[in-house]
Amino acid sequence: MILFSLDRSSGKPLYLQIVEQVRRIIDEGTLSAGASLPSSRALAARLGVNRSTVFRAYEELWALGYLESRPGSYTRVRNRAGIAKADDRASPGLAWDEIATPPGKKLYQRFLSYTPERAGGPENGLISLSRLELDPRLFPVADLRRCCNRVLSRQGAQVLGYGDRQGDPGLREYIAERARTHGMDVTPQEVLVSNGSQQAIDLVLRVLTGPGQKVALEEPTYANVIPLVQYHQLGVEGISMGAEGLDLEHLERVVETRDPALLYTIPNFQNPTGITTSQNHREALLALCERHRLPLVEDGFEEEMKYFGKVALPIKSMDSKRVVVYLGTFSKVLFPGLRVGFIIADSECVERLTAVKRFTDLSTSAFVQAVLDDFCRQGHYGRHIRRMHRVFRKRMSTALEAVREHLPRAEVRWTEPSGGYLIWVSFNTLGGDEKRFQELCSEHGVAVSPGSYYFARAASQQHFRISISMLDEDQIRAGVARLGQAIRAFATTRGGLA
Amino acid sequence: MILFSLDRSSGKPLYLQIVEQVRRIIDEGTLSAGASLPSSRALAARLGVNRSTVFRAYEELWALGYLESRPGSYTRVRNRAGIAKADDRASPGLAWDEIATPPGKKLYQRFLSYTPERAGGPENGLISLSRLELDPRLFPVADLRRCCNRVLSRQGAQVLGYGDRQGDPGLREYIAERARTHGMDVTPQEVLVSNGSQQAIDLVLRVLTGPGQKVALEEPTYANVIPLVQYHQLGVEGISMGAEGLDLEHLERVVETRDPALLYTIPNFQNPTGITTSQNHREALLALCERHRLPLVEDGFEEEMKYFGKVALPIKSMDSKRVVVYLGTFSKVLFPGLRVGFIIADSECVERLTAVKRFTDLSTSAFVQAVLDDFCRQGHYGRHIRRMHRVFRKRMSTALEAVREHLPRAEVRWTEPSGGYLIWVSFNTLGGDEKRFQELCSEHGVAVSPGSYYFARAASQQHFRISISMLDEDQIRAGVARLGQAIRAFATTRGGLA
Repeated sequence: MILFSLDRSSGKPLYLQIVEQVRRIIDEGTLSAGASLPSSRALAARLGVNRSTVFRAYEELWALGYLESRPGSYTRVRNRAGIAKADDRASPGLAWDEIATPPGKKLYQRFLSYTPERAGGPENGLISLSRLELDPRLFPVADLRRCCNRVLSRQGAQVLGYGDRQGDPGLREYIAERARTHGMDVTPQEVLVSNGSQQAIDLVLRVLTGPGQKVALEEPTYANVIPLVQYHQLGVEGISMGAEGLDLEHLERVVETRDPALLYTIPNFQNPTGITTSQNHREALLALCERHRLPLVEDGFEEEMKYFGKVALPIKSMDSKRVVVYLGTFSKVLFPGLRVGFIIADSECVERLTAVKRFTDLSTSAFVQAVLDDFCRQGHYGRHIRRMHRVFRKRMSTALEAVREHLPRAEVRWTEPSGGYLIWVSFNTLGGDEKRFQELCSEHGVAVSPGSYYFARAASQQHFRISISMLDEDQIRAGVARLGQAIRAFATTRGGLA
Repeated sequence: MILFSLDRSSGKPLYLQIVEQVRRIIDEGTLSAGASLPSSRALAARLGVNRSTVFRAYEELWALGYLESRPGSYTRVRNRAGIAKADDRASPGLAWDEIATPPGKKLYQRFLSYTPERAGGPENGLISLSRLELDPRLFPVADLRRCCNRVLSRQGAQVLGYGDRQGDPGLREYIAERARTHGMDVTPQEVLVSNGSQQAIDLVLRVLTGPGQKVALEEPTYANVIPLVQYHQLGVEGISMGAEGLDLEHLERVVETRDPALLYTIPNFQNPTGITTSQNHREALLALCERHRLPLVEDGFEEEMKYFGKVALPIKSMDSKRVVVYLGTFSKVLFPGLRVGFIIADSECVERLTAVKRFTDLSTSAFVQAVLDDFCRQGHYGRHIRRMHRVFRKRMSTALEAVREHLPRAEVRWTEPSGGYLIWVSFNTLGGDEKRFQELCSEHGVAVSPGSYYFARAASQQHFRISISMLDEDQIRAGVARLGQAIRAFATTRGGLA
C-alpha cells in the first residue's frame, strides 16, 4: 500500500523518516481523509524496525494533526480538507484601513514612508552619515558570549522564567549605581527596565498623558518621538531651539497658554542638533518645570558618551522635587539588539509605569537582563565605555576637521558637539528642495539624514543631520568630502556658489 | 593634601584605585567645589606611578562629572552642590494619581491587588496548583547555552543590531514552517514576532479597536486580557462558556446587538477552563465571524501541547478569507524568560501591527530571536516538545486520577482537558466566599487560582483553576490530596458534607 524507503545511513532518526514520508503522501493527496494506516505492528514488521519506532512516528503525526486520534487499534488519516491554502485565498474579508483609527492610519502611512530604512542593509558603495547606530565593529561580542555562558551555567533555569516585572533586581541595582556616578542619587526602587528607550517613551506617554492633551518638545527633536506622540492623540507644542538649547522663554509662554501634559527634552548631544545645554540652563529649566508642576521627561540617551569639553550633570541629579522622569538606554553605546533601556523616576511613578508594562508585555526578557547584569558586573561595561570615549574622541575630532575642511561656509553652518555622534548642519539660505539635495548626496555616494524628519511641522530652514556612529576615520573623511561636493552641487542648482 | 594609599597587590588597576579615592573624598566633602587637584605629573611623581595612570584616572573622573573639565593645566573639582540626595527629598512635586487617566488608575489598582504574585518566589511549603508557568526543571538550558555560543561565534555583531522590525527572517520562516504542520499554510510575510503573547494582544487591540468600542471574549477567559481590554477603554462583552466552548448563539446575539470590534477566543485547553472546541464548533465560529466581518483573534497559546485524545486544527488553518488573527508563543512550552511570541495574520494586517510595534518599541531583541532560531533549527525545539508531551501526558493522567480520587463529587465537578496544563473546578452549590476558600487552601498547604480572576463581572458560580505546569507527579498527588481536604473543610463551613 505505502512504499517506504528508509535510509539507515543518513543519520536521520528512522521515526522521523517515517513521519516525513507519511506527511508527504497525505499532503499530496495519495492518502486521503479517513484512510487507514497499517497497524504499528504490521508496519514495523514490513520495514524491519522496532514497533516502538513506528509508534513514535504515529504519535508525532497525530500531534501534527495528520491522524484522527492517538495511535491505537485504528489509525486513520484526519480530514484536513478545510485547510485554506496560501495560493488560493480570496481577497481579505476585512478592510484593515476601515478598521484602523485615524491615528493608526497616520502612523501606518508614516511607517510606509520609511521603506528604505526598513530595507536596511549596507548601502551600495554609499557612505552612510545618516544612521545613528553604533558601529558593529566595536561590539564586545566575545565578552557577551562569555557572560551568556557564565549566566546559563551558574544560574540556569533561574534566569529563564518571567522574572521581576520591574526588571532584574541586580541590573536595577547596577543602573542605580551607574546613575549615582552621574550625580543621580537614586535607588533600585526608582528604576524600571524597558525594551529600549522607545518603549520607555511609549510607557511614559501612556502614564502621564491622556488623548487630546499636548506635549511640549524641542523642535527639531528625536524623529521617532513625533509620530508616537501623534499616535497617542496628543498635540505637539514645538519649542524652538537656540544655540544654547531649547528657548526657555518660548517654553514658559507655551506652558502658560497651552498647558502641556509634559516636556520631552534631550539635554546632552541633542538628537538631531548635537547641542548640550549648560548647568545654568538646566537649573532654569528645572525651576520652570517645578514652578508649573510640569513633568520633565529627560532623555539621557547618550549620557555615557561625554568625551569632550564641559558637560553638565543630568537634570535628574538636581531633582529634589521629583518632577523629572529620566530615560536611559544601553542601545546607543552597547548592543541595540539586546533592547534594554530604563526609566528612573519617583518610585510611585515607576510603580505606575510598571503596572502598564505588566499588562502590555509582562516584562523585559529576564535572560537578556541577567546577561547584561553579568556583563556590567564583570567590568566589561565600564571598560567598553572607556574604549568608546577613546575611539569617538578621535572620530569626532576627525569629523569636525573634515567638516571644517570640506563644507563650504558660504553655504552651511554646523554645531560642534561635546560628545555623542551627531553634527547638525544648516543651510545659510533658504530655497531648493530637500529631496533634490538627498538625490545629490546619493549621486555623490553619501547619505545624510533629512532635517525634515526631526520637525513636527514644516521647518522654516533647511537642515540635515550627520551621524558618525557607524564609520571609522577613513570613512568619515571620505564621506564628509563627498558631502562637501554634494553641497556645492546643490548650491549651483540654486544659483549659489557660481 | 590628599592621602592616597595604593594597593599594588589587590589586582585592581591603579588608575581605578585613584578614581575611587578621589570620588570618596569629593563625596564626603573633604574636597569641595572649585578645589584644585594636583597636576597629573605631580601626583604621578608622589605616588610613584606612571603619569598616564593619573591622566587616565582624571579622565575617568571627568567623565563621571567629578571634574570641571578634561585633565589639562587646571584640574578642578566640579560643583556638585545641586545634587539632590535620596534621603533629604521633599514630598513629590507631582501628584501621580491626579495625572493618571481613569483607565490608568484602574489598571494601577488592579496591579496593586496582585501583590502576592509580584512577590513571586517559592511559597513556603505550599504546593502551588495556581501558577501557569512551565516547570523550570524541564528547561533545556544546556541546549540554549550551546545555541548562544554558536550564534555569537558565527554571526557575532550581526545579531546584535536592531534587526528586522517584523522579526528575524529566519525565525519567521521557522514559525511559518511550524504553523504549516498545524495546518496553517502561511508565509513569513504573514508573521510578526512580538515580546510574548501579552504584547501581541496589546498590539492587536491598538490596531483593531478604538476607544469606546466593545470586545467579545469568553467568560471566563485569560486573566491578563480583561484589565488590558478595559485599559484600552473598550467595553467587555462576555460570552458564556458551555462544556463545548463558547456559546455560539450567545455570541451571535451579542454581535448583532452590540457590534463588537473583535472576538478574542482560546480554542485549545482554554485558559482557565481547559476546554477544547470541536472541529464543527470551529467551523461554525469561523463562518459566523466571516458572515459578520468580525475579526477573530485566536489565541493558540498552547497549540503545541496537544498530548491526549482528539484535537482539532487551529481555526486559522481554515481561514481562507483572512479574518483570523492568530497568536502564538514560546513562553508556555519553552522559556518564558526569552519573551518571544508571534502573530500570524493577513500580511497587510501584520504590516499595520509592525508599524505600531516599530514606533512603540522598535523591535524584539534580535539576539534572542537569533538564538531561538538556532535552537529550533538544531532540532532542539521539536525534541523538547516531544519530551513535554511524554512528561505532561503522565502528569495530566496523574492529576486527573488524583482529582477523581480526592475531590468530593458531592461538592465539585471539573473539566478533563485533552492537553495543556489546566483543570477547571466548579462548586456544585453557591455560597461561601472565595477569600475564605483561599485561606482554607493555604491552611492545608496548597494554592489554587481563584475563579473570579477570570471574569470581567462577578461570576454567578464559584470556581477555581488548577495548573499542573510547575509540578512533578508526586507534588501533583500531594497537592490534589490537600486540595480535597480544603474543599471538605470549606463544605463544612457552608453546612455541606456533614
